Amino acid sequence: MNDIQAFIFDVFGTVVDWRTTIVEELRVQGDRCGASTINWDEFAGDWRSAFWVATNEIAAGGSGPGSIDALHRKLLDTMLESEKWADLGKLWDDEHRTILTMAWHRLRAFPDSSKGLHALKKSKIIAVLSNGNMRSLIDLAKHSNLPWDAVLSTELFDTYKPNPKVYRGAAYHLSLEPRQCAMVAAHVFDVKSAASNGMKTVYVRRGEDPLSMEVKSKKDGGEFDLVVDSIEEIAGLFAQ
Amino acid sequence: MNDIQAFIFDVFGTVVDWRTTIVEELRVQGDRCGASTINWDEFAGDWRSAFWVATNEIAAGGSGPGSIDALHRKLLDTMLESEKWADLGKLWDDEHRTILTMAWHRLRAFPDSSKGLHALKKSKIIAVLSNGNMRSLIDLAKHSNLPWDAVLSTELFDTYKPNPKVYRGAAYHLSLEPRQCAMVAAHVFDVKSAASNGMKTVYVRRGEDPLSMEVKSKKDGGEFDLVVDSIEEIAGLFAQ
Repeated sequence: MNDIQAFIFDVFGTVVDWRTTIVEELRVQGDRCGASTINWDEFAGDWRSAFWVATNEIAAGGSGPGSIDALHRKLLDTMLESEKWADLGKLWDDEHRTILTMAWHRLRAFPDSSKGLHALKKSKIIAVLSNGNMRSLIDLAKHSNLPWDAVLSTELFDTYKPNPKVYRGAAYHLSLEPRQCAMVAAHVFDVKSAASNGMKTVYVRRGEDPLSMEVKSKKDGGEFDLVVDSIEEIAGLFAQ
Repeated sequence: MNDIQAFIFDVFGTVVDWRTTIVEELRVQGDRCGASTINWDEFAGDWRSAFWVATNEIAAGGSGPGSIDALHRKLLDTMLESEKWADLGKLWDDEHRTILTMAWHRLRAFPDSSKGLHALKKSKIIAVLSNGNMRSLIDLAKHSNLPWDAVLSTELFDTYKPNPKVYRGAAYHLSLEPRQCAMVAAHVFDVKSAASNGMKTVYVRRGEDPLSMEVKSKKDGGEFDLVVDSIEEIAGLFAQ
């Protein structure tokens, strides 16, 4: 791990806490129209699951909205037309739906993110590589003081994770070999895909994966170079 | 100018002072091999002129090295094979040439750049749009504390300025209309190209254009929305 020059971060669920912010914004829109008995955590989970399915299809070569805003809106509309959420669909008009779509630009960072990134930036390049569009990543950074050296949306490469183009493209644009880059994410699929494209791997336990507590580092018999509980922990190991 | 949400900056000659740094690095390499009587300012000017010719050809559809590092090195090699600089070409081996090529990653910022950008960032998006490759722009930002919200190399769009794709691409990735963006540059061609793609224009007088003192703003009968002498001056007008 000594030759790592850049840490490349996933954002949603790794640096920012999408779930608590989205559930809160859903509840606010629910209260506005009297839909207060909904299980908002379940709704948020369904929205996020639909996102995983869609981005995976596009990453594998399928067509779809290139920008995450268009994709989030399309998936929200589809959910609100489904039998499960149809009652809510009748209550939420274009205004509610637009506010909720743009809530993904207002997610709060985890408490350790800003401090950890500032410390790590002193000795390493810190870059974003996210399925979010450029503007959403900029908005999140400004909102939570995330001092990225570079912001790379997968949209710049015309696909989504885990398409190999995005990992190779990120290393190329940093003028680094993949082995000089470490992918940091709270999702097993993301760090595994980075590894299969030659990058080092840092798994952050944020509870995003159901079995995240069982994920292990190589020294503990697992498959990742490093497993940590926060970005500050990474900074503690690599900041100078 | 009230609806501007993002300022998009050229870098070489606008934010960083390429000439004084390059001349200094040329002199150091000259001293190392006893070539101390060369007019380094002229050499730097020839290198930069060759760069303009090459990037213009590529922007108009010609092929060429995509990364600015490869282009700077190719142009340096060509100069050092020319009759004018052949004596120097015999003295400078691969090591000297590599050091000089990478000097473009170590350029000093103008004295007002960092302070002006920090102030402007509080109320606006500040982005780079430069012919430099991503890594060179990251290195320059780290070197001089330039707090970009987004770094966009024209290489991401597979061309160079002034190809229209780069101005339209920058606005698209910021989720803005071109009229909500202001291009900031010390080169007339760059701000004019941005204007012809719908952007607002801020010309910074850095002496990069031979007749820069004659450039005028619209209110003085010229063609640019704003003409300033520094980035701090922009911040003074737009920072909140």
